[in-house]
Amino acid sequence: MGDIDRKEVQERIKRQGEVVRKLKQEKSPKDVIDVEVSKLLELKAQLGDDPAKSKFVLKAPKGTRDFSPKQMTIREGALSTIIDCFKRHGAHTIDTPVFELKETLTNKYGEDSKLIYDLKDQGGEMLALRYDLTVPFARYLAMNKVQSMKRYHIAKVYRRDQPAMTRGRYREFYQCDFDIAGHYDPMIPDAECLRIVYEILSGLKIGDFRIKINDRRILDGVFEACGCPPDKFRTMCSAVDKLDKLPWEDVRAEMIEKGLEANVADMIGHYVRMSGSGELVDALLDDPRVGQNKSASAGLKDIKILLEYLTIYGIMDKSSFDLSLARGLDYYTGVIYEAILTESSVDMNGTEHKKGETVGVGSVAGGGRYDGLVGSFDAKGRSTPCVGVSIGIERIFAILEAMSDKKQVRTNETEVYVASPQKNMISERMKIITELWDAGIKAEMSYKKNPKLLNQLQYCEESGVPLVVMIGSGELEQGNVKIRNVKSREESVVPRSDMINSLRTQLES
Amino acid sequence: MGDIDRKEVQERIKRQGEVVRKLKQEKSPKDVIDVEVSKLLELKAQLGDDPAKSKFVLKAPKGTRDFSPKQMTIREGALSTIIDCFKRHGAHTIDTPVFELKETLTNKYGEDSKLIYDLKDQGGEMLALRYDLTVPFARYLAMNKVQSMKRYHIAKVYRRDQPAMTRGRYREFYQCDFDIAGHYDPMIPDAECLRIVYEILSGLKIGDFRIKINDRRILDGVFEACGCPPDKFRTMCSAVDKLDKLPWEDVRAEMIEKGLEANVADMIGHYVRMSGSGELVDALLDDPRVGQNKSASAGLKDIKILLEYLTIYGIMDKSSFDLSLARGLDYYTGVIYEAILTESSVDMNGTEHKKGETVGVGSVAGGGRYDGLVGSFDAKGRSTPCVGVSIGIERIFAILEAMSDKKQVRTNETEVYVASPQKNMISERMKIITELWDAGIKAEMSYKKNPKLLNQLQYCEESGVPLVVMIGSGELEQGNVKIRNVKSREESVVPRSDMINSLRTQLES
Repeated sequence: MGDIDRKEVQERIKRQGEVVRKLKQEKSPKDVIDVEVSKLLELKAQLGDDPAKSKFVLKAPKGTRDFSPKQMTIREGALSTIIDCFKRHGAHTIDTPVFELKETLTNKYGEDSKLIYDLKDQGGEMLALRYDLTVPFARYLAMNKVQSMKRYHIAKVYRRDQPAMTRGRYREFYQCDFDIAGHYDPMIPDAECLRIVYEILSGLKIGDFRIKINDRRILDGVFEACGCPPDKFRTMCSAVDKLDKLPWEDVRAEMIEKGLEANVADMIGHYVRMSGSGELVDALLDDPRVGQNKSASAGLKDIKILLEYLTIYGIMDKSSFDLSLARGLDYYTGVIYEAILTESSVDMNGTEHKKGETVGVGSVAGGGRYDGLVGSFDAKGRSTPCVGVSIGIERIFAILEAMSDKKQVRTNETEVYVASPQKNMISERMKIITELWDAGIKAEMSYKKNPKLLNQLQYCEESGVPLVVMIGSGELEQGNVKIRNVKSREESVVPRSDMINSLRTQLES
Repeated sequence: MGDIDRKEVQERIKRQGEVVRKLKQEKSPKDVIDVEVSKLLELKAQLGDDPAKSKFVLKAPKGTRDFSPKQMTIREGALSTIIDCFKRHGAHTIDTPVFELKETLTNKYGEDSKLIYDLKDQGGEMLALRYDLTVPFARYLAMNKVQSMKRYHIAKVYRRDQPAMTRGRYREFYQCDFDIAGHYDPMIPDAECLRIVYEILSGLKIGDFRIKINDRRILDGVFEACGCPPDKFRTMCSAVDKLDKLPWEDVRAEMIEKGLEANVADMIGHYVRMSGSGELVDALLDDPRVGQNKSASAGLKDIKILLEYLTIYGIMDKSSFDLSLARGLDYYTGVIYEAILTESSVDMNGTEHKKGETVGVGSVAGGGRYDGLVGSFDAKGRSTPCVGVSIGIERIFAILEAMSDKKQVRTNETEVYVASPQKNMISERMKIITELWDAGIKAEMSYKKNPKLLNQLQYCEESGVPLVVMIGSGELEQGNVKIRNVKSREESVVPRSDMINSLRTQLES
């Protein structure tokens, strides 16, 4: 290693050391710290005496992570709750490529377009990794001229963001999207999307939640009625969207800084800090300023219908009409919503809280109506109205992971282990395990020719295998096998011909 | 549109027209032709009168495809057969990011490295899309210092190849990998990998198959014993690998062209065209040239053990020892294998063949032992021996898709549809569907306020929903609902309080 390289590595060690110290101060989860420590060790190893071997850093790319078997078990458990819900609502599923033509993604994400990952130009088409599942869905509908569809799509999306992995923010992460496309009557599909949010968040058992609901047309109407110029609507939208994190004074300052007059900002502030339910809708419809605005009144009338439907769907007690909700993306045209966890027994750093003591962890689902997106892909501009919801599964994983931190989680499903206390039984073990596999029983055995009995039984206890089939020369001569229950340690001897039936009976009990 | 742009589009229309004509001549599958026709129409639309709208081409990137609900249902069916098998063998699952640090993939794939997709340098790390799941697995083991693991991983991989989509070759495609890592006794995990190939290909019911088995050490030993220089081993390997497609004369010519003397090529040809079973292994061990070679004899002794194990596992009648099998990738160090379909009732172009008339469709699974790969990632070079298999699922999808071409496939799982013959029943339908969802019943209803009864019933017949709950004002007054069996058209009236039980009983029958 040259002196210059050496110096650079030393610099990197210094910086990495700071990262580790900071994480430890912040009491970040152990696996996050471990990853950074291992990076530090890799770097230190580079200064060691084996320059050939230590040239590269062994890691997953920044902002991404591997999933261990335990994490996969938790993830698949959560996904199965979500998929069950989507199927309960009659959804179909589709899949699209992980990258799209670059131009398909152009002009869809406003400011966030800078976060799109481009592929290198290696000749041929210009490609980029998908940023969400909504634009590919719209492209699919337009390309295949599909007029109506209820679909779910669970897949990874990519954002070249500054990752905050301790808060469940990654550069590669899953989205679980459910969308309804088609020309239907107002608010019927919209209400079903909210019912789905309710069913999923209840089903996952991760704590209490609230669903905030608003409508882009109401926000636009308020802006207009208060005298905000139309070209500033989207900018003001993103200012308003910060009201869940910042006090009104800060949001007001941002609005004025972005060119709004103080009295206009104050007037907007009067409205966007309101939240409530049906009565608030009625009050605003009667409001001399907002109620007379065409856009606001159209939005308010739809919200009124929506809240009635939510009452029938039994989820109104979790929902509120909240004028501060704005949502970031440009493509929304009507109803918008977001679900937040209001309490959780663990926070995003994996710190468990005492009973009763809980913390909010922010948005875990969001969506809305986007009636113009499919039309933007159609050569003739034919529109297909859509409404959908995206479940923020990474935050949910982080919570479930923290909740299962001290729990034993089985990471495979083996039902029977084939063991022998004696040497030279590999052929016999193989014969038995073949019978088990043929019978559809999930079975494992040691890959050693002459494994120790203790090691075989220990594996079963540690990994939660319930039953062991044991054969020694005694059983072999008499045409029997011994079946051992790992938990109770009870053993029974059964004729080889009864083995499968006997195992099935014990597995069912 | 400028004249120059116009001319370019006209050129593209001409080229695309040729593509479509060629596909039609070749009797390619309808969906492939449809895609190309739609591209042609897009191009033609660009010459039309709406230049603003028609600027971009609406398509998935070259070599990739969307999966429709029907294709997804077929794909998920096949994947579930495969996952069931992996779980039956006690495997855990992991996941890794879709891209890796570029350097992680460097020097792993020999000539094929040029097929790796790189991400654009947008600042930060240099990244590339994964080329397979084996290298990320090895990186995972080394990074986490995992000494032994039985894992499966089902995910997409990326190769910037010339796609031949009609033959099931794509730039984005799924791999289904099962691997066993750890220091074990010879051939025990290897035999299980082959048993898994057997179980999966039998379970998928896509026609008869054969498994070819060889060992890199035997090939190397043959090369060495015949006088081939060691630096030509890998080149000769890829020449030999073509024996399944080319006659010996062509392979011989390639060997000589690549610098082998004719008599050496002929001697190699004598051996690599052999195939058989245990007797061939014995004959080669007794062969004065090959049997005395250290590398060949080590390989032959292991193959002998492997064939014994395969006999116990009941799969020897599907397997053969075949010296022409070489496999492309550099990282194999021992046993290698490949499964080929020997007959299929449909070919890759979706053409169905008459009963008895079948075609081979080539390799659908392959793998082998790679004992050095994990060590190449370890700073101290500690090795973790591995053996694994990859299922070539895209070809399998193509076959299953062609088989299901004329069959009705349900693409959602809705059990009950809530309908009404009368107007103004939206609230009542919503109340009933809420009860169904609460009870975990998969239920849908129309998103129209006042849908026609005929349309509601037609949807059920077309999409295979088995039961309908109907309410009109009559049922409503008497506290009843009507349950209709879609297939038999039988209807029964039950009290509202018995609705759930009655539906469950009918769904189970």
